[in-house]
Amino acid sequence: MIIDRTFAEEVVQPRPLKSHKGTFGRVFLVGGNPPYNGAVIMAACACVNSGAGLVSVATDQNTISALHSQLPEAMAFAAADEEQFQQELLRADVVLIGPGLGEDYLARRSLEKVLNGIGPQQTLIIDGSALNLLAEKEDYKLLPQKLILTPHQKEWERLSGLAVEKQTPDKNRAALTHFPSQTVLVAKSHHTVIYGPDSQIGELPVGGPYQATGGMGDTLAGMIAGFAAQFSVSSFAAAAAAAYLHSAIADQLSQTAYVVLPTRISQELPEAMKRLSMKN
Amino acid sequence: MIIDRTFAEEVVQPRPLKSHKGTFGRVFLVGGNPPYNGAVIMAACACVNSGAGLVSVATDQNTISALHSQLPEAMAFAAADEEQFQQELLRADVVLIGPGLGEDYLARRSLEKVLNGIGPQQTLIIDGSALNLLAEKEDYKLLPQKLILTPHQKEWERLSGLAVEKQTPDKNRAALTHFPSQTVLVAKSHHTVIYGPDSQIGELPVGGPYQATGGMGDTLAGMIAGFAAQFSVSSFAAAAAAAYLHSAIADQLSQTAYVVLPTRISQELPEAMKRLSMKN
Amino acid sequence: MIIDRTFAEEVVQPRPLKSHKGTFGRVFLVGGNPPYNGAVIMAACACVNSGAGLVSVATDQNTISALHSQLPEAMAFAAADEEQFQQELLRADVVLIGPGLGEDYLARRSLEKVLNGIGPQQTLIIDGSALNLLAEKEDYKLLPQKLILTPHQKEWERLSGLAVEKQTPDKNRAALTHFPSQTVLVAKSHHTVIYGPDSQIGELPVGGPYQATGGMGDTLAGMIAGFAAQFSVSSFAAAAAAAYLHSAIADQLSQTAYVVLPTRISQELPEAMKRLSMKN
Amino acid sequence: MIIDRTFAEEVVQPRPLKSHKGTFGRVFLVGGNPPYNGAVIMAACACVNSGAGLVSVATDQNTISALHSQLPEAMAFAAADEEQFQQELLRADVVLIGPGLGEDYLARRSLEKVLNGIGPQQTLIIDGSALNLLAEKEDYKLLPQKLILTPHQKEWERLSGLAVEKQTPDKNRAALTHFPSQTVLVAKSHHTVIYGPDSQIGELPVGGPYQATGGMGDTLAGMIAGFAAQFSVSSFAAAAAAAYLHSAIADQLSQTAYVVLPTRISQELPEAMKRLSMKN
Repeated sequence: MIIDRTFAEEVVQPRPLKSHKGTFGRVFLVGGNPPYNGAVIMAACACVNSGAGLVSVATDQNTISALHSQLPEAMAFAAADEEQFQQELLRADVVLIGPGLGEDYLARRSLEKVLNGIGPQQTLIIDGSALNLLAEKEDYKLLPQKLILTPHQKEWERLSGLAVEKQTPDKNRAALTHFPSQTVLVAKSHHTVIYGPDSQIGELPVGGPYQATGGMGDTLAGMIAGFAAQFSVSSFAAAAAAAYLHSAIADQLSQTAYVVLPTRISQELPEAMKRLSMKN
Repeated sequence: MIIDRTFAEEVVQPRPLKSHKGTFGRVFLVGGNPPYNGAVIMAACACVNSGAGLVSVATDQNTISALHSQLPEAMAFAAADEEQFQQELLRADVVLIGPGLGEDYLARRSLEKVLNGIGPQQTLIIDGSALNLLAEKEDYKLLPQKLILTPHQKEWERLSGLAVEKQTPDKNRAALTHFPSQTVLVAKSHHTVIYGPDSQIGELPVGGPYQATGGMGDTLAGMIAGFAAQFSVSSFAAAAAAAYLHSAIADQLSQTAYVVLPTRISQELPEAMKRLSMKN
Repeated sequence: MIIDRTFAEEVVQPRPLKSHKGTFGRVFLVGGNPPYNGAVIMAACACVNSGAGLVSVATDQNTISALHSQLPEAMAFAAADEEQFQQELLRADVVLIGPGLGEDYLARRSLEKVLNGIGPQQTLIIDGSALNLLAEKEDYKLLPQKLILTPHQKEWERLSGLAVEKQTPDKNRAALTHFPSQTVLVAKSHHTVIYGPDSQIGELPVGGPYQATGGMGDTLAGMIAGFAAQFSVSSFAAAAAAAYLHSAIADQLSQTAYVVLPTRISQELPEAMKRLSMKN
Repeated sequence: MIIDRTFAEEVVQPRPLKSHKGTFGRVFLVGGNPPYNGAVIMAACACVNSGAGLVSVATDQNTISALHSQLPEAMAFAAADEEQFQQELLRADVVLIGPGLGEDYLARRSLEKVLNGIGPQQTLIIDGSALNLLAEKEDYKLLPQKLILTPHQKEWERLSGLAVEKQTPDKNRAALTHFPSQTVLVAKSHHTVIYGPDSQIGELPVGGPYQATGGMGDTLAGMIAGFAAQFSVSSFAAAAAAAYLHSAIADQLSQTAYVVLPTRISQELPEAMKRLSMKN
């Protein structure tokens, strides 16, 4: 199926009048370790601008000041703070781990805390280097149920065992059967495809080479988290609509920009979502 | 009564020609402890942009750099610096405590210093987690006279003992009699109501779900502080006009934005206040 | 004399085609100690945007990151670094000390280093709390020759011994005779007056109460430093033209802003100076 | 030859549709030591905005937060981290060393690591204070092959032994023979000239005194790195096109700005490159 504007309009509905921050979900982001501190900043920026009710970030101590310099709207604390980490993990509606997480001891420990602590009602999005750590696991079936994976081709190769040139729709779908049955796969490439648990295959009619720059994936992951937190739709629909809008905004910006910076996409989110919600 | 544009125009008067920074008041903000560092940044941003003459912030040491990265106009120091804290407390016209204060030992200590040190001519605004700490007190009548409380429904429940569903105008007004007689209550919800000491009940014809995002309350608290510091009107009028303008700006921004970020409201303040002061 | 647009146009000349950074002067700023870190950031921002060739800042270690977050164009180092301090002092064309300097031991030490190290060809601008420290001196005649003082009324009271209500043009001029003969005085108030060494008294037909907010003076001081560094005119002309433009920009912004933030004035500088230089 | 718009249009081609971050190159920047922390921030800003696929910065620990505050798109780590340094050096397509590097022990050590570790396929750009360190070397012929030098007149004097007034095209070309045969020289002055290995001499019809401000060279160096990383053209063509565009953007901004700040040029890059790539 084609994930087009009409699909995204179905997801991005006008907000209910009687609502509060909690109505739009609580998102917990984990990542941003050196030298990738900026990755979790970009994810948080996308998440807040996409309308998540509350956004909290566990990261390296040195990332916090840079995050709050540009996004005071997000909460942030050192990922090494066990108590705070558990508390945020417990009350989140959506957890996103991976943007700039790295693969060192602390990264591994954060991933284990998330995998062990997350409950069946919470959506877990795994992105970036957390996918490489995941690839070391023996049995993917033990992963949480409400799972969204957002690998680029090399990450998916490590995870699925499929070499990049063998990542066809059929093989990707077969590889996905090794994961929990509700898993959504956002297979990123110059032609991103979203795989849903009911054999959905969503293709994007948007996107282009102006998006090939560092941080683009972190921004998409943050948007998926924001959409999953606030919209009462399936994980597939949330991920697909976010991926659509991410590339649709880039397309529009590329009319006047040779390269589209990830943070520019986040800035456009409130206006672009408003237009979607008004269906015009 | 309806707090409308005409009400706000009465408050936001053109500035006197012969004036200096002191004419527009000195505001002292206390808050911004981890992980809520951004809260006091947003409050300070709203306060400076609303026209307060001088704004000083006592916060966590790590908040200061992020604050000055985006708002060099505000002064800032570590809340643990006792001498500086007492000095700023002494000379402030308005004190706002709460945005991102937290509830730990340092938070409690800061609140006690404020409650013990504030004088009868100084306006005290209590917001956020400081309201939770206040709820532990036995006798609200011992609080300072010029008091403005800005709780959301759960905070007001803790403070008043009224469960959220019982927070009717009559019950709220009755609960307010346990506080000093001049207390103003800004009862925040998707339908915010402002209660004054002379039985005023102000209702807002503005506001909407695009405001349901983290930091919105911190921004409102900063605006109330700025209004109370510079306008020679009652605390009720200052709080009501600030609440009106806060939501009126959000309404306008929401014409083209799905979610309105708190910092965007602050950016609009100088222009919106100019229009109010010109009554057009 | 009235310092008007024509006066400023005479100062802000088109740049010579054959030029390099050095042509437009080297400015050394000293200040920004806690809690006033933002003051030197605002001064540096004004100085860079006014076109100074190179701007270097000696400040508190914690100010540096916030400065570079918004103004990577300026150099910065800890004021406690004696060697670097002496080196910058030696090669500066203009030294500005005072914005957010404070009055503690380090502040005093910085002022002494500047007063002792500055040469007869270097312009020295003394602002803010450095003026209070100066007021403790016994003999102002020992101060450097190329001196610009930028006190507000209370600072001038401490410096001159004239109570605010006695600060008339005649008395101010008389008080100025206690300083080196070439001293320029920028007496800031809601009606700023600039006093030159040849009995000039410059009055501004611009400015208003929208400027009464923290940081406005720091911004003016930074502009005066930038003008003195790059324009081949007298200190009086540089200070007067900067004061004119500072208020003229504020006037223009105030058409649509209730309060004009200092950093907004700096943002407008390149455009406003371009218009002046083109005399249209 | 004149490096004009047509020349730049040949370099800045539309991006290939089937591409990813790696297609547009990996750039490694080294610099930003105190007090010049901002220099490497400006270089990174130019490099990211010019479309490099991935940008990584080795710098002083204190620079990192300020960098990520405005450019989360770049990776960053402490230059003292030997392992990370070697890893980034190894996988970079282009290495730029110099913006704000300084000349102390750590600066020298960073330069040695780069000179010793760089391979024959990697482009090395040497800028700023790294050029002064280079001037201490005995035999320039031992330098890496794919070399771009970006000195201003005093730096070139130290490097070539030619006093500023003797830096004629003929003498510059002769001096260049002491460097590896493929070396490109960007001789910066108010009339910048680019020398290529095949006796090319490129002159710019653009640029002016509004560019004479601190950070301009750092921005140019970052652009050259970005161009060299993504365009399949000679080092001469990449450097010349970048130098053209840098000054062409400044020219355009100078229509309404007395001084053009380096960071403003970087902001314009995506739009200006889009126009070039569309040849209109």
